[in-house]
Amino acid sequence: MTNKDARTPASVQDEKSQEAGKSIGWHKAYVEGSRPDLRVPVRQVHLTNGKSVTLYDTSGPYTDPLVDTDVRRGLPPLRENWIIARGDTEEYAGRPVRPEDDGIKHTSPRGGLRNLDAVFPGRPRQPRRGRDGEAVTQLAYARRGEITPEMEYVAIRENVAPEVVREEIAAGRAVLPANVNHPEIEPMIIGKRFLVKVNANIGNSAVTSSIEEEVEKMTWATRWGADTVMDLSTGRNIHTTREWVLRNSPVPIGTVPLYQALEKVDGKAEELTWEIYKDTVIEQAEQGVDYMTVHAGVRLPYVPLTANRKTGIVSRGGSIMAAWCLAHHKESFLYENFEELCEILAAYDVTYSLGDGLRPGSIADANDEAQFAELRTLGELNRIARRFNVQTMIEGPGHVPMHKIKENIDLQQEICDEAPFYTLGPLTTDIAPAYDHITSGIGAAMIAWWGTAMLCYVTPKEHLGLPNRDDVKTGVITYKIAAHAADLAKGHPGAQEWDDALSDARFEFRWEDQFNLALDPDTAREFHDETLPAEPAKTAHFCSMCGPKFCSMKISQDIRREHGGSRAEIEEGMAQKSKEFAASGNRVYLPIAD
Amino acid sequence: MTNKDARTPASVQDEKSQEAGKSIGWHKAYVEGSRPDLRVPVRQVHLTNGKSVTLYDTSGPYTDPLVDTDVRRGLPPLRENWIIARGDTEEYAGRPVRPEDDGIKHTSPRGGLRNLDAVFPGRPRQPRRGRDGEAVTQLAYARRGEITPEMEYVAIRENVAPEVVREEIAAGRAVLPANVNHPEIEPMIIGKRFLVKVNANIGNSAVTSSIEEEVEKMTWATRWGADTVMDLSTGRNIHTTREWVLRNSPVPIGTVPLYQALEKVDGKAEELTWEIYKDTVIEQAEQGVDYMTVHAGVRLPYVPLTANRKTGIVSRGGSIMAAWCLAHHKESFLYENFEELCEILAAYDVTYSLGDGLRPGSIADANDEAQFAELRTLGELNRIARRFNVQTMIEGPGHVPMHKIKENIDLQQEICDEAPFYTLGPLTTDIAPAYDHITSGIGAAMIAWWGTAMLCYVTPKEHLGLPNRDDVKTGVITYKIAAHAADLAKGHPGAQEWDDALSDARFEFRWEDQFNLALDPDTAREFHDETLPAEPAKTAHFCSMCGPKFCSMKISQDIRREHGGSRAEIEEGMAQKSKEFAASGNRVYLPIAD
Repeated sequence: MTNKDARTPASVQDEKSQEAGKSIGWHKAYVEGSRPDLRVPVRQVHLTNGKSVTLYDTSGPYTDPLVDTDVRRGLPPLRENWIIARGDTEEYAGRPVRPEDDGIKHTSPRGGLRNLDAVFPGRPRQPRRGRDGEAVTQLAYARRGEITPEMEYVAIRENVAPEVVREEIAAGRAVLPANVNHPEIEPMIIGKRFLVKVNANIGNSAVTSSIEEEVEKMTWATRWGADTVMDLSTGRNIHTTREWVLRNSPVPIGTVPLYQALEKVDGKAEELTWEIYKDTVIEQAEQGVDYMTVHAGVRLPYVPLTANRKTGIVSRGGSIMAAWCLAHHKESFLYENFEELCEILAAYDVTYSLGDGLRPGSIADANDEAQFAELRTLGELNRIARRFNVQTMIEGPGHVPMHKIKENIDLQQEICDEAPFYTLGPLTTDIAPAYDHITSGIGAAMIAWWGTAMLCYVTPKEHLGLPNRDDVKTGVITYKIAAHAADLAKGHPGAQEWDDALSDARFEFRWEDQFNLALDPDTAREFHDETLPAEPAKTAHFCSMCGPKFCSMKISQDIRREHGGSRAEIEEGMAQKSKEFAASGNRVYLPIAD
Repeated sequence: MTNKDARTPASVQDEKSQEAGKSIGWHKAYVEGSRPDLRVPVRQVHLTNGKSVTLYDTSGPYTDPLVDTDVRRGLPPLRENWIIARGDTEEYAGRPVRPEDDGIKHTSPRGGLRNLDAVFPGRPRQPRRGRDGEAVTQLAYARRGEITPEMEYVAIRENVAPEVVREEIAAGRAVLPANVNHPEIEPMIIGKRFLVKVNANIGNSAVTSSIEEEVEKMTWATRWGADTVMDLSTGRNIHTTREWVLRNSPVPIGTVPLYQALEKVDGKAEELTWEIYKDTVIEQAEQGVDYMTVHAGVRLPYVPLTANRKTGIVSRGGSIMAAWCLAHHKESFLYENFEELCEILAAYDVTYSLGDGLRPGSIADANDEAQFAELRTLGELNRIARRFNVQTMIEGPGHVPMHKIKENIDLQQEICDEAPFYTLGPLTTDIAPAYDHITSGIGAAMIAWWGTAMLCYVTPKEHLGLPNRDDVKTGVITYKIAAHAADLAKGHPGAQEWDDALSDARFEFRWEDQFNLALDPDTAREFHDETLPAEPAKTAHFCSMCGPKFCSMKISQDIRREHGGSRAEIEEGMAQKSKEFAASGNRVYLPIAD
């Protein structure tokens, strides 16, 4: 999205910043809101024709040369004063951090009580929650008619009036995930009236990866445009990894608390209890997790509906809950304790991401009875969450062939009162492991066009292994393409200005501008230089694809030059100029040396 | 597409072949038709559970260990006897090959007359054409009610009755591009009732690349699934490159004769004449080009319609014709001589690919007046071509946002009497140079679902440079995904069997089968091995993504094992088995070592 005309970014940048920015083709600027501590970051691309294009920026302070970032200290607590100023929260001692929070056995020599200071070297802090269990959520404020600084912030980011933001949140059509214990985030909004958002998953697993790698993946993902990040760690150091990620993340962080709860019972699903789960949710809410996937829709009677499926239950959370339900032959403890869970989430402003534990894992299982039975339950839970003023979004599939995609979003919007839909792809075919960013990018673009608010990325490693740095980047870029294609198709105001700026640069052979406006300037430049590496090629009026003799854009330009610019001029002067053109022996392009 | 049950491939393979096949996970087999020289190649994937899956195969004799291929000799002329047996063609001396055909100046010391023997070392041959200018096209035969061996061949490939093939061709809803001078091809069909096809472009340019590279790119592209290949060479050795490509290609070859014609007038568009163009078409028809892009829809009055566009004319052929029209202030010589061109094409069975010279080159220009004015002319030309029994398909855009895609195919089908649509993407946004295989793969899947018969691939290098080997592969795989996703969405019979086979393998942890069934087995295997390289991991009931503790598929399997397989069994025994399960202290999975 460009907002070239709407607001002029405040000139808060000095020479140093502008210089640093130039080397990567853009510089970080800020748009100031109604108060000095409300400064919305944008990416300003300076074009060689003197114009500039302003793009949405998710990369956080890391791309601001004026901010000294240090992963051991964490990001500055941008929202802290806003939260305190509301006066509806209180600091408290909080739940002590226990060895098992990090997957360390009680008997381990490395065991023993620890606290957050030990977990993360940054500034000491106590957790915060709603005073007297009050719902301190953006939904509660919105319904009371309040426009919070967070709402104003996203209004500037989205180039809409703050009242639009408030209305969409109040109606439950959008969420603004912002835990009171995650003051570091730059607020963002998820809803069909706004830009389509992209989530990137990170997380170590039992098999591989480390804390530093996960923090690095998070900053890497947001640099390329991830709007939120889910930490799906399942191995050791799960608490500590999350703390580092949260303290360094400029975007909302999501988790699946069930994964950690299962670690605490040594992977024995049947030993899970509501108490262990609840304790884990509080642990994570105190750390600052902004949204949590809760598989409360996997109910006991739905499990048999998956029996005739080709690929059963493919959601980890879904399969854990199904195993628990069957082992005890009891209704899900998440479903049964949902109201209490709402009270907890409301006290921290944790947003629900109601998980689709029964999503289809293959083309054959798409849109089946199990999937839609669960969706109806999610609709019911959404209404309960609303009663408790908990912001809520709904997760969606999965593997779905193209002709069955629209039914997913249409039903979800109907059943869930237009709560934001948050889908994984969907993957439009099963036959291309190693390319599932593409099989799913197709489905993601379509379902976002039809109203999905956030897309969970899929990397090339899906079904095969853990994504590395390159896979994370490929996944994010692919999903930014899907999201932007959807913004265009929805006619989002301003979305096309970005395409137009790039196409203008292309037509006018401004190669550097093309690169700098690209979603991935580095790779665009690298690909160009592979065949025509010399510096003069950057100003050449052709490229290596067709060479100078066949460049259609050059011919088009020559036609305009020779025959006048506008249609009227061309039509009027066509016959006359045609004669001159022929007489001059002019060539539409220069033949290359033979 | 799988046709597991329909036909059993003849066991024409000996031990050697089976062995060779095993190492790459599949082996080449043939399905025999009504005569011994009608053997349709298929890719047979042998699964570890004893079953096999039969897939469409475009790779030609190169993947048959029983056939000795030699690029200097060319492929065996598979269709030669069929063509001769029809008795409606004659061999003749043909047009002598001239130095300028290869872009060599008359004055060059390397000049002088040459012949085809000098151009290609393979078997000497004379060109063939319809006797007394007769239309020797598959369309003519189909309309006469004849089912040719070519039609039977594609019927077997597509798993439909030969009569369906004949009907679709006769109605002009499908084309079977098969020049009588290209007997080497394995016949294939392009039409909305059949599997969606993919074209890969190759071609040297004035700037880079060599003959050998182009032949190599062609075999590489077909190995990964390209159904046709367009040779878009524009530099030196254009005639010789094409001869090598044709003699070695198992798939139909398309060209844009205008490119070579322009080389013959040293790149001066205004010096082009109908005579030079016609001579070039005959030259290429004698070589065996199966389909030709002809930009006869770029008419003089449409050129001014592009004046207010953001990116003018982006088709090379379109811009050349526009420049010619303006220079002479005359109607296009292609439009004016279209009937004579039809007569020539009919005599060789060259299929028209009526070019969209005015396609949009940016999101801003999509579906504009210029584009649709040309489309209406293409509809008119399609009807003329039909009068001459020339097979015809229609080319389509380009850059089109998602919400404007459907109008393209709907209008084309209406205006062009359901002639096959052959589109380039479309690209759904302009902002991602270096990822335009993805921006366009999204549009390609959608437009193919809605009825486009063939998709022209786009590689990551689009707009930036010439594709190399890796880019060609990425482009083809991306477009095979789009094509197959569309086959699924259209409910093409048998399409889903491929997905089902792969998903079964996934659910049953048959890793080798997953790899071998993948569109790209090599990369799928490589990605898996990156995190879990050991051989035992290939039989592990989990992968590195979640590790053994969180594998939802494993949990699903365990649920079925514990609680019975079918829904009835689960429902019936749920309570009872739940008790046993709890009592046994059984775990749904084994905890990993700590």
